[in-house]
Order: sequence, then C-alpha cells, then structure tokens
Amino acid sequence: MERKRIAIIGVGLIGGSLAIQLHEKKISSRLIGVDATKEHEAKALELELVDEILPLDEAIAQSDVVILAFPVDLMVGLLPSILDKVDQQIVVDLGSTKSQLTEAVANHPKRGRYVATHPMWGTEYSGPAAAVRGAYENKAVIICNEGDSDLDALEWTKYMYKKIGMHLLSMEAKAHDLHAAYVSHISHITSFALANTVLEKEKEDNAIFEMASAGFESTVRLAKSNPAMWVPIFLQNKVNVLDVLNEHIQQLTKFRDSIRDDKGTDLQNLIEHANKIRRIIK
Amino acid sequence: MERKRIAIIGVGLIGGSLAIQLHEKKISSRLIGVDATKEHEAKALELELVDEILPLDEAIAQSDVVILAFPVDLMVGLLPSILDKVDQQIVVDLGSTKSQLTEAVANHPKRGRYVATHPMWGTEYSGPAAAVRGAYENKAVIICNEGDSDLDALEWTKYMYKKIGMHLLSMEAKAHDLHAAYVSHISHITSFALANTVLEKEKEDNAIFEMASAGFESTVRLAKSNPAMWVPIFLQNKVNVLDVLNEHIQQLTKFRDSIRDDKGTDLQNLIEHANKIRRIIK
Repeated sequence: MERKRIAIIGVGLIGGSLAIQLHEKKISSRLIGVDATKEHEAKALELELVDEILPLDEAIAQSDVVILAFPVDLMVGLLPSILDKVDQQIVVDLGSTKSQLTEAVANHPKRGRYVATHPMWGTEYSGPAAAVRGAYENKAVIICNEGDSDLDALEWTKYMYKKIGMHLLSMEAKAHDLHAAYVSHISHITSFALANTVLEKEKEDNAIFEMASAGFESTVRLAKSNPAMWVPIFLQNKVNVLDVLNEHIQQLTKFRDSIRDDKGTDLQNLIEHANKIRRIIK
Repeated sequence: MERKRIAIIGVGLIGGSLAIQLHEKKISSRLIGVDATKEHEAKALELELVDEILPLDEAIAQSDVVILAFPVDLMVGLLPSILDKVDQQIVVDLGSTKSQLTEAVANHPKRGRYVATHPMWGTEYSGPAAAVRGAYENKAVIICNEGDSDLDALEWTKYMYKKIGMHLLSMEAKAHDLHAAYVSHISHITSFALANTVLEKEKEDNAIFEMASAGFESTVRLAKSNPAMWVPIFLQNKVNVLDVLNEHIQQLTKFRDSIRDDKGTDLQNLIEHANKIRRIIK
C-alpha cells in the first residue's frame, strides 16, 4: 500500500504511540501533528513523534488520512466540523466510546469517509512523553458500524491496524459500548475508588509505601489515569457504566455481609465463583 | 551463620518459594517438607523443593527451625500444639494476619521460640507447582511483637529474611493487621468482586476474552487467588476489613452518583484525588 500523509490530532499517549508505529512500519510518508496545547506540540516535535506541527485546518488540507486521538467529549463536538472540511481524506477516531460519536455524524454527507475504531490499548500515563514504541502490538482493535464507511476508507484502516500488529474485531457501536463498560471502564472506576479508599483510610503514607505489594500496585495503578480522558468516557457511556457499577456495588456488598456475619461458606462460594475468571484470563 | 535443618509446614506457593531461596542462599543444611495433602507432598519432592517428607511430629523433632506456611485459620489451631512439641527449635510463621495468632500463644511457655512474620509477597496461584525462584527479593517483611520472641530466634529470623533479599519492618500485630487490610486484603476483595461482576453481567465470554486489555487483567488477576488462603484472612481481620470495605463501597457510590447525575466536575475531582496515589506508587 502506498505511504500516506497522516495528520494526528492529539499527540498524547494514544496518538503519539500510534505515530511511532506509523513511522516504523512505513505506513506514513509524512506525519503532521496537531494538539490543543503548545507544550504537547513542542514535546511531540522534540521527541520526533511527528515531522511537523500545523493548525488543524491546514493539517486536514495537507493530509490523506486524519487520525483523531483526543478525549471523547471533544470528539463529539469536533468530528462533524472535521468531516465538513474533508474531501477524499480518510478520518479515523481512536476513542473509547462509540455510540454518541457515530450518532453525531450518522447523517453527515461525508459519513463514508469516517471509520469508527477503538484500539484496546493504553496505559495509566498521558501526554506525548508517555508515548511508547511497540504499543498496540498483539492487541485487539474494534471497528464499529463498518457498513457506514466507504470501502476504501475501511480497507485502508484495516490495513493500518494489521500492519501495526493488531487483530481486528467488528461490532456495532452499541455492542462495543456495552462490552467496553465491562472489560475496561469498570476496571478504571474500581481502581480510582480503591485509591480514594486507601488515601482516605490509611493516614500513614509510609506504611503503604513500605508494605504495598505487587497485588496492591496492580489493582490501583489505573488510578493514575488522566481525568480529561476518563470523565467524558464515563458520562458518554453512562447507561452501561451505571449498570455494571451498580452490579459491582452489589457484589462488594455480598462480600461485606458474608464477612460481617462470619459466613465462611458463603465467602468460599463467592471466591470460588470469582476464580472462574481463570477461563477468561490466563 | 551455621546452616540449619529447616522444616517447612505447608509446601505450597509461599512455603515452596521460600524453600527454593533457603536452599539457594545456603541457609538450610536440610529441608523437610510437611503438607496436608499427599499430592502436594509428592509434587514438592518431585520439584525438589524439599529433601524429604516427614510426618509433622518427626519433622519438628528433626529440625532446628520450623516454618509455618499454611492458611491462617489452621495456624491459630496448630501453633500452640507445635510450640508444645518444641525444645530449642525456632518457629516462624508466614501468615497474612497477625493479631489472632499472636494472641493465641501470648501466654504459651514456649512463646519466646516463636517469631511472628509476614513477608509481603505472593501471587494469585497456589500449590507447590506455583513456587517461584527469586520470590521475596526486594520485598518487605513485617516482624510483629519482636519483644515477645527470644533474642536468638529473632536474630536468626532476621538473618534469614535479609539473606533472601527482604527489607525488615517492625510492627505490633494490631498495627500490622490494620495496614494489611488497606494495602493487601481490600485489593483482593475488589478483584474478586470485579470478577463476579463481569461474570454476572458479561454473558459473552468471547467478547471479554477478545477485548480484555492489560488494564482489565491487572485489576482482575487477583481474583484467581485461592479461597482456602483468603477466607480465613478476611474473617480473622474482620474489623479492619469491614472498615475499609465500607469506605470502598462509599467511594464507589460517589462515582455512581456523579455519573448518574451527570456531575462532570465532581467526577473530575474524584479522579484527581485518586491520582494522588502517584505519590505512593510509582
């Protein structure tokens, strides 16, 4: 496939990590960066994540592909106006929610140029300096509402994701948001809440610092994640997130009640049931 | 320090991993294994974790040091009778709770031979086959109620833990149990409950399997942990665990209410507060 001029709007963790792969896998002929902050733009240039920085409109005009990698609340506002400016460019978004976004452009005359995707990769860090070489490899990417995209746009998007080592899944936007609530959004909420719990209860920082084991670190590390990214995800996916969060509070309450009432057998059963997660994660 | 004959009662993940280090660091002259199940005893021999298997009483009689590495409910029952059989042997337990155990032998005539410890290491797996080389290195070990142990017993125990690369912390049993609830026990409960939540809500195993990212895996991996180990920990540390668990349910409820009521600013504040965990874990 011919190398393309690619604009990356949002050169942080997600966009920056993709930029590295686009360059390394020779998918891009030129990488243009756009960001909401001057600091990020300067950092992205300094780290050579992109070849140049341009204003949004120029970046769109001078590209074959426009990649959107910024918080999903801004995406819903910006995607329609970006499509307004598009001629034959392919527009791909990397956001973590898909329903509101696809609905926002469902009737846009340029809808076909847009491909809705969600690569299932991230870390708890943010900004261009958090960008990682080799990200996305061996992870899943979900492409939503394929039928609404032009064939050439869809094909190029699939080519790009395969080339950076991802395996492709196809899903309707609504199904995506439901599953994402279960396998990603709820994990972040439990981790944020766990951090707040420990910060509230444990007044001796030193004790946590000294005693914290690998188990604690693994359950709480997502709590370092960026609010600018996660607040709009939780709000956009409100219905699914509330559903799974209410269930989670109920499940915790079962543990609470079993412990409070010294119900060893109930506790045993709850844990044995939880052990079934082994069939899903190695 | 002269190498000692060491009996390990419970040759699973914790005892088996210690056995490997005792041998490698030339701390033991002979390793005797004892376990509640024939399968574990056979596996421990096959994996050469120990040199021989003996019945409990013979193992105690033929050792200089007796290490206890089995679930804490059995520990409370067995420790007094093990101390009954002890002459000059040192007895060290590796259990995750310390109050009930130290109280159970507080007035035992042989109390001085016993050292109460909690090495802060583990994985979500169990049994002799889960034993790992190099475990415990660079982790903390907490030694409780030092003043109740004979000086020689205490000194040897510290020597052993330093030799396998651990850094020592000293704490009263009550303080240990409080901090352990915050930095270890609650993480396991949230992970078990998260697994049950996802298993309850997500009926499409395949979707989780395909979509599950590193974030999901890290928050849910502890849910594979062994109920035989964790049920008695939660029950013995009931007061502290309930306190932190109730706080956690409240923290989750704050997230739930903010999302339900579209309170973006509240959600932002909750997440920014959670981000403060950065000062504790890197």
